[in-house]
Amino acid sequence: MKQSTPKGTRDFLPEAAAKRNYIFDTLKSVFAKYAYLPVETPAMEKLETLTGKYGEEGDRLIFKILSRGEKLQRALTSDELTEKNLSEEALRYDLTVPFARMVVQYQNEINFPFKRYQIQPVWRADRPQKGRYREFFQCDVDVIGSNSLLNEIELVQIIDEGFTALGLGDYNLKLNNRKLLLGLVQELGIENQFIDFTVALDKLDKIGVEGVLNELRGKDIEENKIQEIKKIVDLKNDKKLNINNLKSFIKSNDTGLRGLEEVEFVIQNANNLEIKNCEIDITLARGLNYYTGCIFEVVHPDFNSSLSGGGRYDDLTGIFGLKDVSGVGVSFGADRIFDLMETKGLFPKNLNQSAKILFVNFGDKEQAACLRFASELRKEGISTEIYPDQVKLKKQFKYADDRAIPFVAIIGENEINNNTITVKDLQSGEQKEYNIKYLTHMLKS
Amino acid sequence: MKQSTPKGTRDFLPEAAAKRNYIFDTLKSVFAKYAYLPVETPAMEKLETLTGKYGEEGDRLIFKILSRGEKLQRALTSDELTEKNLSEEALRYDLTVPFARMVVQYQNEINFPFKRYQIQPVWRADRPQKGRYREFFQCDVDVIGSNSLLNEIELVQIIDEGFTALGLGDYNLKLNNRKLLLGLVQELGIENQFIDFTVALDKLDKIGVEGVLNELRGKDIEENKIQEIKKIVDLKNDKKLNINNLKSFIKSNDTGLRGLEEVEFVIQNANNLEIKNCEIDITLARGLNYYTGCIFEVVHPDFNSSLSGGGRYDDLTGIFGLKDVSGVGVSFGADRIFDLMETKGLFPKNLNQSAKILFVNFGDKEQAACLRFASELRKEGISTEIYPDQVKLKKQFKYADDRAIPFVAIIGENEINNNTITVKDLQSGEQKEYNIKYLTHMLKS
Repeated sequence: MKQSTPKGTRDFLPEAAAKRNYIFDTLKSVFAKYAYLPVETPAMEKLETLTGKYGEEGDRLIFKILSRGEKLQRALTSDELTEKNLSEEALRYDLTVPFARMVVQYQNEINFPFKRYQIQPVWRADRPQKGRYREFFQCDVDVIGSNSLLNEIELVQIIDEGFTALGLGDYNLKLNNRKLLLGLVQELGIENQFIDFTVALDKLDKIGVEGVLNELRGKDIEENKIQEIKKIVDLKNDKKLNINNLKSFIKSNDTGLRGLEEVEFVIQNANNLEIKNCEIDITLARGLNYYTGCIFEVVHPDFNSSLSGGGRYDDLTGIFGLKDVSGVGVSFGADRIFDLMETKGLFPKNLNQSAKILFVNFGDKEQAACLRFASELRKEGISTEIYPDQVKLKKQFKYADDRAIPFVAIIGENEINNNTITVKDLQSGEQKEYNIKYLTHMLKS
Repeated sequence: MKQSTPKGTRDFLPEAAAKRNYIFDTLKSVFAKYAYLPVETPAMEKLETLTGKYGEEGDRLIFKILSRGEKLQRALTSDELTEKNLSEEALRYDLTVPFARMVVQYQNEINFPFKRYQIQPVWRADRPQKGRYREFFQCDVDVIGSNSLLNEIELVQIIDEGFTALGLGDYNLKLNNRKLLLGLVQELGIENQFIDFTVALDKLDKIGVEGVLNELRGKDIEENKIQEIKKIVDLKNDKKLNINNLKSFIKSNDTGLRGLEEVEFVIQNANNLEIKNCEIDITLARGLNYYTGCIFEVVHPDFNSSLSGGGRYDDLTGIFGLKDVSGVGVSFGADRIFDLMETKGLFPKNLNQSAKILFVNFGDKEQAACLRFASELRKEGISTEIYPDQVKLKKQFKYADDRAIPFVAIIGENEINNNTITVKDLQSGEQKEYNIKYLTHMLKS
């Protein structure tokens, strides 16, 4: 029978695993330079922690764990069997809600501001399709317990440094601010429809300007206001978009002006730090309702969806009873970044390289010498392999080739007598005899 | 309401996460030096992949995923509702079975021998107790598709290098061989009770010699054979245990002699490589029935259960239809190693250190200079933090202290005018003014 993994899940063989680790390691080293620390939460959360946090659609996509033992028996034999009494735990759906739960749970142990990153898989019972999986990794970086805009600037720096390190320095960072959007709808007199407005605006890339306006018409917004909204949305394509254009819309609305000032401040500081590819996008709305301030989104000319996104939330921990803790964070879309880097050929060569040198195996007597030399090379930190079986040389060389091993060491009677190693450079085909000291030197250089 | 994680699961706050990463990173770098490559499998497997592989008790401890949508509705409204039609997927119970499934699934893409390591969580619905969790990490290293004893030697080297690197170089590695045990029972004429014999022997540390013998008496083994078994078990405490003692038991039994030769060969080679703390333990049986050759177990004088274990299996992939593929592997018990290192104080200091230097925050004007200097330090790879909020200095210094940050940078009007940074060494209390070039130099040295 053909073996396989569940629908929408994947195995990672060495090359894919190494590539993914390369992305994670690169981002981790950036996070560390900015003093963010790792945390981890369990794969499972109590069902009550997750339900009601992702909207009706999200709730339906949560993977639930079947109860066991007596609890299950009781449920199965009860008169009113429903989904509810079959499950008390579920797999995490994102990293944000578990992080909020964690912050609330350990609020007395955590010294705020708390800067953390978290790289873990999440599970969603979505219909699998190209680039969308039921198990995928999220890579989140947040600072919570500080409302300083320095945090936003820092996240822009992290985005810039992260994408640049991955070879994607030609990204574009779009910035907006929920306060600015709120100010706009306040001026239009449709403040009560703020969520309708952001939800519709968030679909702009998918359904176009007319789509957005029609959606809003469906929400009973008057036509003269729809026309005002059209003018605002059209600003997206106005290459001369500047602060004064925007100010004419928000007039003297305090919230809107504050939002605008915040975006300006972040962009100005980014520019001072030589980060040039960020700009305001007045139509950026972000799907999640908990954002209250700056919002970010990273796009790339060669990819059709965002690679990273985030924003400031003023009350994420409120859902778990801890009020007035402001935070801001971004999430890197590791799977999308993976796909884009793959398309553009941005992964370093030889991530599948298992060792720097392979000792071929001639027989029992030669093995002892191989073991000794290999041990000395490893002591110097050189990744070294001995082919374990006494098989045809051709097969052993193919093994080296498949694993991108650049050098093959050959030890025969001659070498044993001379206490040397003959080494073949698989690229040049050149073959040379070394003593262990010079071989170490050569492999390290 | 008090927030918490499901029973038997844990959060890892930064210090614990950093400590665990330290163990994983140390082991990974050893695995890499021996040319093992990473793989990953999904958290979920098809239920049929897992059931029947861990015995009845194991099957009961598998976490199952509740079906969704139509499938669930159909199950709930069916006349014969059982646990079976409520679930089609389950969380992985160990790394071994998913690895076997993976090897079988990709047998045509994998170039054998296949050397892989895998560090991922597993889930077991065990009763939680001290040191036993429902979610815990396994850390497995295996080579499959080679029956050379060089692999066993290499695993002994990996064990030695791994434990030594973690500061646990005073471990003891016990070795035995299933063929040797099989030879012994063959000579006793109780070959059919081989599994009873190994299962009982595996409990020796828990139930003592008499316990083992009584368990075997319960299996209808004749008393004269029980007395022979007692002699064998007593060899464990025989400090002069040598090959000749053992040979007198296995006589001319080929399988037994081969097993003995294999253990001798591995120990001899380990000794040649200066690995002295491994020895044969004739009572080592290992709980798992799939072992067929060498078996290993690592113990430590300061810890009451094994820290690592493994062995050779000749037919693990057979359960998925791929016959005659021999492999050998060991698993590192990361949680136990964590606990032992914690008790012995073996973790490096300052794993909780978030940054090398913290810029305190005096106000808007000073922030700009801080951003510029911090950015220059980070370009040199120095982990640098700016306190985001303009709060009392005492609070900012406490923050540095809590995160083991050794230096605090102070930028006031003077420093801005001089283009300098005043740095306080929090350990010595000394304070000095630097330009950015000398500060970089000092922090890197």
